[in-house]
Amino acid sequence: MINKLIEKIKATNAPIVVGLDPMLSYVPEHVQKKAFAEYGETLEGAAEAIWQFNKAIVDATCDLIPAVKPQVAMYEQFGVPGMAAYEKTVSYCQEKGLVVIGDIKRGDIGSTSEAYAVGHLGHVQVGSRSYAGFHEDFATVNPYLGSDGVKPFIKVCKEEKKGLFILVKTSNPSSGEFQDRLIDGRPLYEWVGEQVAAWGEEHMGDSYSYIGAVVGATYPKMGKVLRSIMPKSYILVPGYGAQGGQGKDLVHFFNEDGLGAIVNSSRGIIAAYKQEKYASFGAENFADASRQAVVDMVTDIRTALENA
Amino acid sequence: MINKLIEKIKATNAPIVVGLDPMLSYVPEHVQKKAFAEYGETLEGAAEAIWQFNKAIVDATCDLIPAVKPQVAMYEQFGVPGMAAYEKTVSYCQEKGLVVIGDIKRGDIGSTSEAYAVGHLGHVQVGSRSYAGFHEDFATVNPYLGSDGVKPFIKVCKEEKKGLFILVKTSNPSSGEFQDRLIDGRPLYEWVGEQVAAWGEEHMGDSYSYIGAVVGATYPKMGKVLRSIMPKSYILVPGYGAQGGQGKDLVHFFNEDGLGAIVNSSRGIIAAYKQEKYASFGAENFADASRQAVVDMVTDIRTALENA
Repeated sequence: MINKLIEKIKATNAPIVVGLDPMLSYVPEHVQKKAFAEYGETLEGAAEAIWQFNKAIVDATCDLIPAVKPQVAMYEQFGVPGMAAYEKTVSYCQEKGLVVIGDIKRGDIGSTSEAYAVGHLGHVQVGSRSYAGFHEDFATVNPYLGSDGVKPFIKVCKEEKKGLFILVKTSNPSSGEFQDRLIDGRPLYEWVGEQVAAWGEEHMGDSYSYIGAVVGATYPKMGKVLRSIMPKSYILVPGYGAQGGQGKDLVHFFNEDGLGAIVNSSRGIIAAYKQEKYASFGAENFADASRQAVVDMVTDIRTALENA
Repeated sequence: MINKLIEKIKATNAPIVVGLDPMLSYVPEHVQKKAFAEYGETLEGAAEAIWQFNKAIVDATCDLIPAVKPQVAMYEQFGVPGMAAYEKTVSYCQEKGLVVIGDIKRGDIGSTSEAYAVGHLGHVQVGSRSYAGFHEDFATVNPYLGSDGVKPFIKVCKEEKKGLFILVKTSNPSSGEFQDRLIDGRPLYEWVGEQVAAWGEEHMGDSYSYIGAVVGATYPKMGKVLRSIMPKSYILVPGYGAQGGQGKDLVHFFNEDGLGAIVNSSRGIIAAYKQEKYASFGAENFADASRQAVVDMVTDIRTALENA
């Protein structure tokens, strides 16, 4: 799957991923109204609203982008119907040829991580048959429990040709509270990064590993160090746009081959119509505003890479 | 909710929690067969099988125990139908008067953690109405992202009178890879424990905080240190039984008031009928075997506490 992701990045010339994190407040009123008219102001109604919202954005952007990253929390908040909308979104994006990175940040002890891995990336056995519950192509994983929490994910990725992005340095303001603490003179995130690199070297696609890392755009200097620690790992970079990261902050996340990083924007794309810059599209044409925001983001990153 | 948990622990004189982690391989054949006869060998069939399995165990043990801890991964592996079985299990246990600790180990950046908190412990707004998606009483949370990943959970707990158990030192063999690394001479888990204690002091129930910690039974010496670092935090202790922890290892997780810890056993209780010790019950009477395993576990812990 890492090979497919890289092929798609090359084909679109767009090292970006659209974060499908549909807060209900991002969904234009006319979309909400229609969903509520059919299902009422219920969890099912909310699930329908976010699904229709996603579908329109995917339809408007899928030719420009290699991948999407649905954030499962935004679906999980709507209970079981929300999880059904998540699965439907994953399926639809895959039908459209997009690589789907499930932003699930799971991680647990061995047998439990195995269940998560099976549910999200693999197949679960039911009697004589097997099923893929949520069937994302990649998943994000939390490393706090150490290697026996991560290895079951790696095992399933190997069997199913899927991939991981392991949290190394997250984009949020307080990520440093534990991740930046010094251990033998070096921050925890570097130790985690080294472990990711070691896992990565053992699990290679053609040119990059299918064991990648998450490093926030909001910490470009750390990104530069982590890039050199994990030369063969793809870096998923959240925090662009709404969280404050800009194209020029991103150049050090890439390798000299122009590859090695994929930059996520969520709110900045899916709620673009709410920004002054794209207000002229109007709420009715929210998906067109998202398309324009994708074009602008790709231009920003390409320009930064060309000038680097 | 921490007050209710403590009341129930006192009333049952059983500082234990039954881990409802139903691997399909734990579910006796006759239960699986019946579910598959109705729903086929499908995700729905698997979900029905684990739900019927849970229900029988809850019915057989609910008068003896204060709480259950369903591990969401074991449900999530069966996709959307699995999540529906999870919600049904949470509801049923609450109807039976049990406190439900959702072992979800979620944790993300601010707005995303808020969505998880709302979905699992709070209410989500849909138009003019609000809904509680999974409505557990407590949830486990991963601290790797720092305080802005945890605070949204705390906020919802305050509003809804719910509680958290934050991962401090997990029970698995490789938990030390990152958690034990020394920072200014002290392991990371102690720093996390201090942070939990600080959050805990600000968010008190009557005698204990509703911000608790997870510390594995498999690390009793570290448990002793963490007990003193977090005097007002309840400690959820996994790793008893199948993972190797025994009653005598657990005494230092408790305070002198006999409170302060709640010990989880999953496989050791729910798959008791598979152990030689309880084989005479037979697979037909798996729930009675679970009841006997609860009685034995409570005796083991009470004896250890009395001899301490």
